[in-house]
Amino acid sequence: MANQVSKHIKTLLSFFLFVLLLSDTVLSVRKSINLKKPCKHFLLHLHNVAYDSDNTANATSATVINPMVLGLGNFNFGKFVIFDNPVTMDENYLSKPVARAQGFFFYNKKTTYNTWMAFTLVFNSTQHKGTMTIIDANPMMEPTRDLSIVGGTGDFLMTRGIVTFTTDLIQSNKYFRLKMDIKLYECY
Amino acid sequence: MANQVSKHIKTLLSFFLFVLLLSDTVLSVRKSINLKKPCKHFLLHLHNVAYDSDNTANATSATVINPMVLGLGNFNFGKFVIFDNPVTMDENYLSKPVARAQGFFFYNKKTTYNTWMAFTLVFNSTQHKGTMTIIDANPMMEPTRDLSIVGGTGDFLMTRGIVTFTTDLIQSNKYFRLKMDIKLYECY
Amino acid sequence: MANQVSKHIKTLLSFFLFVLLLSDTVLSVRKSINLKKPCKHFLLHLHNVAYDSDNTANATSATVINPMVLGLGNFNFGKFVIFDNPVTMDENYLSKPVARAQGFFFYNKKTTYNTWMAFTLVFNSTQHKGTMTIIDANPMMEPTRDLSIVGGTGDFLMTRGIVTFTTDLIQSNKYFRLKMDIKLYECY
Repeated sequence: MANQVSKHIKTLLSFFLFVLLLSDTVLSVRKSINLKKPCKHFLLHLHNVAYDSDNTANATSATVINPMVLGLGNFNFGKFVIFDNPVTMDENYLSKPVARAQGFFFYNKKTTYNTWMAFTLVFNSTQHKGTMTIIDANPMMEPTRDLSIVGGTGDFLMTRGIVTFTTDLIQSNKYFRLKMDIKLYECY
Repeated sequence: MANQVSKHIKTLLSFFLFVLLLSDTVLSVRKSINLKKPCKHFLLHLHNVAYDSDNTANATSATVINPMVLGLGNFNFGKFVIFDNPVTMDENYLSKPVARAQGFFFYNKKTTYNTWMAFTLVFNSTQHKGTMTIIDANPMMEPTRDLSIVGGTGDFLMTRGIVTFTTDLIQSNKYFRLKMDIKLYECY
Repeated sequence: MANQVSKHIKTLLSFFLFVLLLSDTVLSVRKSINLKKPCKHFLLHLHNVAYDSDNTANATSATVINPMVLGLGNFNFGKFVIFDNPVTMDENYLSKPVARAQGFFFYNKKTTYNTWMAFTLVFNSTQHKGTMTIIDANPMMEPTRDLSIVGGTGDFLMTRGIVTFTTDLIQSNKYFRLKMDIKLYECY
């Protein structure tokens, strides 16, 4: 009798293991997000050298719409900047870039300096190949701010997450450096 | 004997409860989407006051590219507008804003008024802090249209969903009000 | 005794089936991604006819910022193009469009032709209704490149995936045709 019961139990156990296995096989990749532990986490530094008509060799960004004519406040409302900025592992502008940040930002507030940004980190190193696209408001006067990572390709296929910006250095209108603390919560 | 069997069953039960708990712990947040029931659902109203060179105090948006010179049809093809618009709970422009809508739109059709929009709802109230980014075509002559919500931060961390636009009011080229019916299907 | 045990087991079995059913009901749509098998996969062709001041009838895109004045290299840095391009099933420009591609791109490199793109495929055919939004760097000198699909509406509600671009044809500054191999990995 005891044997028979134990057989029942074994059958039951097998059945549930089978159900568990089946669900894994059918669903392929189950999406799961641990907000306490990003699936990828790294720190990068973005360098922006503004074009000023006589620094073509060094410039990495350029204003393509000039807001001076606009007159909507004193905080560059409407100024539109396109960039192809080097991104490095450390703070040194001269370090070998691990990625390029390609995209744009514009100023859009009457009462303070505030930008809206959309750009892609383009990785093409031995370590990483692929892209990661970031789009969000960038209230640049805040000590830190979070921006959304909405997608990616290659090593960052369909990734999502958050990047925390800190403005590390501003040198008049010529140069700024952003610290980017990248936290990905969806990785494939 | 019966006791022993019942013990077996208890062991089995514990095992499965353990497996259930384990899977929850390891997977953390299982992604699940109920298309019939958004995880968040609310209604907001966006107000756009166009800058016309003598309303700096009230203006919330400005044309930064003028399409007049373009000649590609009669529907403002190429007109590019940057905005920082107040967003309220009710239809009253003077109500306390619960968010700002920061971004841009441009006209891009020869045969009718049609825009493409990208903007972020920036919440900074006692109720909500965080952002939500919306990007899509906006065929503004349609009575309603859906736009994609592609990401967010803070209270809206990595959210996704749909916003349904209805143009509630247009006052010549000076003012328009959009009703935004926001349905989020991914919340964390 | 054996009956009683078997009853215990039945109760146990019912309990677990109930838990399984419950979890399915509550979670509704479980997100699952099979990177080897897109949930939707199709090929489309995008046609871009540049406006050159005397082809209003045929033009589908227009430069709204002219980079000539910029002087930042010889690769159109800053040139900004807004488009409403027809998208067809085959390579023939005259075939009935199945979608419009609405959005923009700009050149952003000093050392080669390189663009950054953001646009929405707007489907309005008997077969498909809805939108799909694509945003990424587009290193157009590469034979193929992947761009991120970050969201959608209608038939492509909240979709995500990758589109692989191949430039099939370039006719001076007047016309180009892109092959778009669309692979969606999230479908609802």
